[in-house]
Amino acid sequence: MSDKFDVIVVGAGPGGYVAAIRAAQLGLKTACVEKWVDDKGAAVLGGTCLNVGCIPSKALLESTHQFHNAQHADVHGIQTGEVSMDVKKMVARKDKIVGNLTMGVAGLFKANGVTLLQGMGKLLADKQVQVTAADGTATVYPAENVILASGSVPVNIPPAPLTEDLILDNEGALNISETPKRLGVIGAGVIGLEMGSVWARLGTEVTVLEAMDDFLAMADKDVAKEAAKIFKKQKLDVKLGALVTGTEVVDGKEVKVTYKDAKGEQEIVVDKLIVAVGRRPQTQGLLADDSGVKLDERGFIFVDGQCRTEAPGVYAIGDSVRGPMLAHKASEEGIMVADIIAGHHAQMNYDVIPSIIYTHPELAWVGKTEQELKAEGVAIKVGKFPFAASGRAMASNDTDGFVKMIADEKTDRILGVHMVGGIVSELIAQAAIAMEFGSTAEDLQLTVFAHPTVSEAVHEAALAVDGHAIHMANRKKRK
Amino acid sequence: MSDKFDVIVVGAGPGGYVAAIRAAQLGLKTACVEKWVDDKGAAVLGGTCLNVGCIPSKALLESTHQFHNAQHADVHGIQTGEVSMDVKKMVARKDKIVGNLTMGVAGLFKANGVTLLQGMGKLLADKQVQVTAADGTATVYPAENVILASGSVPVNIPPAPLTEDLILDNEGALNISETPKRLGVIGAGVIGLEMGSVWARLGTEVTVLEAMDDFLAMADKDVAKEAAKIFKKQKLDVKLGALVTGTEVVDGKEVKVTYKDAKGEQEIVVDKLIVAVGRRPQTQGLLADDSGVKLDERGFIFVDGQCRTEAPGVYAIGDSVRGPMLAHKASEEGIMVADIIAGHHAQMNYDVIPSIIYTHPELAWVGKTEQELKAEGVAIKVGKFPFAASGRAMASNDTDGFVKMIADEKTDRILGVHMVGGIVSELIAQAAIAMEFGSTAEDLQLTVFAHPTVSEAVHEAALAVDGHAIHMANRKKRK
Repeated sequence: MSDKFDVIVVGAGPGGYVAAIRAAQLGLKTACVEKWVDDKGAAVLGGTCLNVGCIPSKALLESTHQFHNAQHADVHGIQTGEVSMDVKKMVARKDKIVGNLTMGVAGLFKANGVTLLQGMGKLLADKQVQVTAADGTATVYPAENVILASGSVPVNIPPAPLTEDLILDNEGALNISETPKRLGVIGAGVIGLEMGSVWARLGTEVTVLEAMDDFLAMADKDVAKEAAKIFKKQKLDVKLGALVTGTEVVDGKEVKVTYKDAKGEQEIVVDKLIVAVGRRPQTQGLLADDSGVKLDERGFIFVDGQCRTEAPGVYAIGDSVRGPMLAHKASEEGIMVADIIAGHHAQMNYDVIPSIIYTHPELAWVGKTEQELKAEGVAIKVGKFPFAASGRAMASNDTDGFVKMIADEKTDRILGVHMVGGIVSELIAQAAIAMEFGSTAEDLQLTVFAHPTVSEAVHEAALAVDGHAIHMANRKKRK
Repeated sequence: MSDKFDVIVVGAGPGGYVAAIRAAQLGLKTACVEKWVDDKGAAVLGGTCLNVGCIPSKALLESTHQFHNAQHADVHGIQTGEVSMDVKKMVARKDKIVGNLTMGVAGLFKANGVTLLQGMGKLLADKQVQVTAADGTATVYPAENVILASGSVPVNIPPAPLTEDLILDNEGALNISETPKRLGVIGAGVIGLEMGSVWARLGTEVTVLEAMDDFLAMADKDVAKEAAKIFKKQKLDVKLGALVTGTEVVDGKEVKVTYKDAKGEQEIVVDKLIVAVGRRPQTQGLLADDSGVKLDERGFIFVDGQCRTEAPGVYAIGDSVRGPMLAHKASEEGIMVADIIAGHHAQMNYDVIPSIIYTHPELAWVGKTEQELKAEGVAIKVGKFPFAASGRAMASNDTDGFVKMIADEKTDRILGVHMVGGIVSELIAQAAIAMEFGSTAEDLQLTVFAHPTVSEAVHEAALAVDGHAIHMANRKKRK
């Protein structure tokens, strides 16, 4: 037995470390448990997102986007000579950014007075947390409150068992050290499309095998359709309805992938294969039999709308509980739970959580899709504005995509905003903020947007909801 | 006398053409008068903004930003040969974008049924507009309503009279066809800083002479200070308190500029000199003596809060009336006036108009500065978050700057947001939308921002207002 903490957080990913910092800010004596260590035995903070997810993928996407720009700089009158990529240097830059950020989290723990407990955390009965260090020593810490933030792990599929350096998950995919000639990706989700984009830009022939018949089934169909069209031009070959049935490593240097589609059995041979079929909650070894915490039928930790588990004083947040597996969802749940523990009112609006895919153009959305709303029988108005009509997008040679806004036909309230475009990852917050205020389309029509910005497309899409876009011939009747 | 229009708009800049399109959309019989013609006598639509202002400057800024990126691509592992700029090609690309956009406005006039009247418009008595074509033919058109949108022209100063190709205004500055070795700019305002940036990136030695002692006096002091620090690193040499006293063209190929500063009489010699000291309302030849429209003491057309002039049925909008000389302010006034004419309620919130300077990093703000609020005696809370602590900014190697949010100490209402950073031109709309809803800092604290985005800095700045930023050691006491 050791010191009693007000809060012990298990897991130092974007859910856990944010919860711990917030709890400490609120004056609670807080510890955070993390089992991940580096080669030297030092704790690795930041979880999947920071180490092998959001951040390193964005670093590689930025580098390869700059590579693409350099290759196509001639349109601006820029002469460069031959452009090539030193992949090892690109990966080293990524590693340095990740290193700085994990060190940054450690610094924030110190600045806020969060105690780091290195080891594997396990919830025992009665809000006690056992921490087993790398050397096997186990210490039990009592706590007034526990926040489980154990995250998720990649799903592996039997036909594609991982290998040392040919068949890779998201972590291995981030450390490919030279440009493969041919790359296979299983799964056309966020990770598959982002990693596919990185290598396609560097000249790799990329084949993405997606078992489902629908492309980007979670996105609005207009977004999915536009994205499919653009990815095709980028030579990201996405094969739909393609169920992988087997893999075979040939001569230790390439992978034969067999899959079944509508036409029957097919085969491709690639130099690297990335498995990116999804993630599942990480709860292995997390819960003692008498912890009192229950899992739901899909293996997620069961929680209520405010992240309370079945065990009093024990909360769970992030990828290991229901809801989208997104870093920002985890962080906001962490803030909510810390606030609740500190005795404040706190809740979270699960209806307004933005999603982004960082291809180029980027895809971003918040709220419901046209298809969801129609299925629910909601009468809607739709406004759409293409970036091709945006002066700023033209000035930037970045005119693919559009902003699509959906409002309630009767109340004019905005129900969903869906975007494809150069930097829509940074525009989607406008929609999220507006929707948090219950904005109508007219509210955004009446807001002054700066000129020239690509954000004006949000303004124009709002105007288009009522057939009033200025810089586009409107199809609807005006009123 | 000719056909009677419901609305005649004088001027086809961003105020006038938007007003005309909106009026036509609302079912009003609308004409728009424009005197500007190209070499072939065809009307040039879009005004200063589209032809010699916002759009062409952004095209050159984008091209030179790409040039800068290509030159510094090594940080990503990208290898190039020597990077050079074909300035003529860069300028040709800019011209093409401008051409497409002006043609686009012509297309929108057609699609919306706006009649274009080519020639110089003059308001006569009783809502009649005289249009004098290039050949001198004058036609008088009666109208139910007139909207004056005549824009502005650059201010010239006696010590620096323009020349054919050495001493230039904003229009000439956009068509410099080879990289000057030395460039002088008179005026450290938006145009001066943007044009200075374009050429500094291409290797020109740029000296900006600003008569005022304060740098960016209209901006929040934190923004101005950060910008000054960064511009200095970019070798944009801004000399404050430097009053130009004379210019002399030497040998027809360089310009000797004399100025006075605190140390006395100074002199620089440059290859090109850009005069960018400000703009004044364009009202020359616009108003007949009996038009009924009055000017204010500064030469602006006098209007009320809804842009009504002293003459019944005559409105004026944009740069020729009070308020900031910004394209989006003009456009929104155009929409408001068209709505009023069509019998709708309409007003405009002059307190929430964003401003942007498109240097790199960009500067953007909306609402009041800390200095303004303190002068008014308002008790405020300030939150600031640096992009250096943003994961996305780190991934993009673009970590200069910050977001600063100011809220009312008592009500928590957001009163101003001030930014310096890579793409803050596209973030400022978040602040504008929030402020239109009377958002408190807490409202933005409770909104979910997508990770990883630089927009998260807006979220963090809102948290910092109460000493609760997550990714930064907070200086304030937490509560």
